[in-house]
Amino acid sequence: MSAPTAAADQSLCAPLPVLGSDVTVPLVTGGDVTYAALDYAASAPALKRVWDDVAAYAPYYGSVHRGAGYLSQLSTDLFENSRATVAEFLGCRADDQVVFTRSTTDSLNLLAAVLPAGCQVFVFETEHHASLLPWRDARVTCLDAPRTPEQAVATLERALAGREPHGPALVCVTGASNVTGELWPVRELAAAAHAHGARIVLDAAQLAPHHPVDIAELDVDWVAFSGHKLYAPFGSGVLAGRADWLREAEPYLAGGGASRQVTRRADGGVDVQWHTTAARHEAGSPNVIGVYSIASACRALTEAGFADLVAREQALVARVRAGLAEVPEVKVLSLFGDDAPRVGVISFVVEGWNSSHFAAALSAEYGIGVRDGLFCAHPLVRTLLGSEPQEPGECGAPEAAPGERSLNAVRVSFGAGTPDEHIERFLGAVRELVTSGARWNYRTEDGRCVPDRGAAQV
Amino acid sequence: MSAPTAAADQSLCAPLPVLGSDVTVPLVTGGDVTYAALDYAASAPALKRVWDDVAAYAPYYGSVHRGAGYLSQLSTDLFENSRATVAEFLGCRADDQVVFTRSTTDSLNLLAAVLPAGCQVFVFETEHHASLLPWRDARVTCLDAPRTPEQAVATLERALAGREPHGPALVCVTGASNVTGELWPVRELAAAAHAHGARIVLDAAQLAPHHPVDIAELDVDWVAFSGHKLYAPFGSGVLAGRADWLREAEPYLAGGGASRQVTRRADGGVDVQWHTTAARHEAGSPNVIGVYSIASACRALTEAGFADLVAREQALVARVRAGLAEVPEVKVLSLFGDDAPRVGVISFVVEGWNSSHFAAALSAEYGIGVRDGLFCAHPLVRTLLGSEPQEPGECGAPEAAPGERSLNAVRVSFGAGTPDEHIERFLGAVRELVTSGARWNYRTEDGRCVPDRGAAQV
Repeated sequence: MSAPTAAADQSLCAPLPVLGSDVTVPLVTGGDVTYAALDYAASAPALKRVWDDVAAYAPYYGSVHRGAGYLSQLSTDLFENSRATVAEFLGCRADDQVVFTRSTTDSLNLLAAVLPAGCQVFVFETEHHASLLPWRDARVTCLDAPRTPEQAVATLERALAGREPHGPALVCVTGASNVTGELWPVRELAAAAHAHGARIVLDAAQLAPHHPVDIAELDVDWVAFSGHKLYAPFGSGVLAGRADWLREAEPYLAGGGASRQVTRRADGGVDVQWHTTAARHEAGSPNVIGVYSIASACRALTEAGFADLVAREQALVARVRAGLAEVPEVKVLSLFGDDAPRVGVISFVVEGWNSSHFAAALSAEYGIGVRDGLFCAHPLVRTLLGSEPQEPGECGAPEAAPGERSLNAVRVSFGAGTPDEHIERFLGAVRELVTSGARWNYRTEDGRCVPDRGAAQV
Repeated sequence: MSAPTAAADQSLCAPLPVLGSDVTVPLVTGGDVTYAALDYAASAPALKRVWDDVAAYAPYYGSVHRGAGYLSQLSTDLFENSRATVAEFLGCRADDQVVFTRSTTDSLNLLAAVLPAGCQVFVFETEHHASLLPWRDARVTCLDAPRTPEQAVATLERALAGREPHGPALVCVTGASNVTGELWPVRELAAAAHAHGARIVLDAAQLAPHHPVDIAELDVDWVAFSGHKLYAPFGSGVLAGRADWLREAEPYLAGGGASRQVTRRADGGVDVQWHTTAARHEAGSPNVIGVYSIASACRALTEAGFADLVAREQALVARVRAGLAEVPEVKVLSLFGDDAPRVGVISFVVEGWNSSHFAAALSAEYGIGVRDGLFCAHPLVRTLLGSEPQEPGECGAPEAAPGERSLNAVRVSFGAGTPDEHIERFLGAVRELVTSGARWNYRTEDGRCVPDRGAAQV
């Protein structure tokens, strides 16, 4: 017996309109079907509202900060108002800075570039690569995967207390795992960091699209997130938080916009006065459309009622978990256990299936877009799977043949734009594939598992 | 007597359709007028074709490289095909790499980050800040402003020949000045660089939108440019050229996408295998729409017939120069003299006028968007003006009161989307302002020169 669908609960809001909801894709078995985008954790579709805002603005686009023309002034106001909108969305403190970057990865690389001398960095091995790898010039302590939120806090406290020397330190933690969707105890980790004289940055790439983030209430020092996961896929991201490290460091990029004054010295060299505002780290012409699209998404989520969106998504999470629990061959990956709160990001393996094969069949036979692989979180997925490092490959595209033991996982992820039908189709497809197998042959081509169009139907 | 307009020449093509051509803006003197965007050198409007391509693709947007779904695979193909389109547009050699960045500034900061140990950098003081400032960890030789192209080559040869030690060296040179529009002798500078064992990067930010750029024919090692000046304002840029320095250096950003495999070592640390392709420097989810928009612009310019676009722009350049030459109070800035070839970027000062005041009046009284200031090329503009460094301010927004001697300049710039009417309106406005003065009072507010709406009309 199936659980009731989210739609059956009249108290839940409708999904938000997104681009692509009427796109149809061909099935290898014949015919077309509307595409079920269930890879929100990689990139979410644009909200219709965001697209409409961008389309309305595009004819008014002009260079910001520097032009004398009407559209330049309009664009400058729109750009700086977007900064204010993002600050409000994140609950920034009065003296926080909002720096626009290109992505979460870029935001964390920026923060890595402004660490004070001698700063040590503490990350869990469970982080995705964007949080795990940027800290190149710092001494990095990689903490073992905890199996409960309490263990995470205890592990961090022990590491911070024992650090030598007891100098500046930064903790980087994800708000919601991009593999398990599980929420991390951000407030408690922030308290632990501060108690030990460290700072903390929240990687909210997977949290911000699914859950309100309040920087002051969580008491984190910085928050990073990406537009493209927040329904605004126009190439911008955000690093928001404490201004001091940002102001005191060399500019992230050197160039116009970051420079206040440039003069040649008598000895032939060049002297530069850099800005001390967010512009210090935003050299070059800003991505005005990207920034505006993020602000538009922030407004759209707020105005739709973020609490209502969370309630609906949680109903979908429950439905997916209940549906997958009915299939004994499916094992959902979890670090913190069944009861851990989580967002709409769920990874699993299927007994007897290579995950790439399973994901390829979901796409080719059902028009469902999920992701397979290690999700740019290699150590975490290997810990969850108990598997060894493998060769090669492309991030998330192993070349194991269909049918072999799974070395990677399937991830289904969804959000504010996901209709119930996508979830029901996905659960039906999982049941059918597990029960009846794929209806087509697949092969690996350029690292992708694809239908073997030369072969006869199974 | 005025020179004939470009439109009068039936042999010239029509301007390309751009967004915003029907946008009207209010005049301080009453009424509305269609906006004349004459600040292409800062940011060009989007080509209608580019916008249409982006709008057609947006519903099909998906994560690239990693997703199993149909839209992810479609988006991956579109993304990598865009790389191939850009390579073709630039005439790349077979083993060149095309790396997508966020802007020219970002591209040159990337190149600065991959310089081999001990590499010396040679730049002219005439460069804009994006070319002048990124070379922070290198020993930089700043060359005096040449007054002829031949002098530029001779100056460079002398500097390269005399470098101590005679190790790896990089020359960075702009293709077309963002202040004077003048073309630099790129081919000759490349030959000089190579003759002295140096490499050369062409900053084509102002060249690529106005003139075909062929990396192999010019024999430069790299080319950098921005989408937003090439009618594709969606937050992406390009660095294209030799793969070796890129492949041998640490990744520009550290994170997913750049990493091929990440494993924890027995000692608790983390080992990373990085990609050796362009992905090495493109960590994080790429800006697919930004990249696709650049490819769309490349196709649009090529298909429209770039030579025809150049011919039309050159007619506009001649018209502007002839028109300004009729106004004795106007002095056009030039490094290489009247006969130097140039693109549609022209800067000037007006006797008795503060340039910010003049630009503000062009905007408020004529609906014309130009730029005033130092154009993120402070040493060059000061050399051309013979003026001293000034305090402050914001890049291009001095606080000198209207009427004072000009410490900065006005820049008018245009391109493939500019109709004759914008040029004629601009020239008429210059004549009228010089002859009759502004019809409104202006004041400086937040570093901008703006109409003083509290004051009575002049």
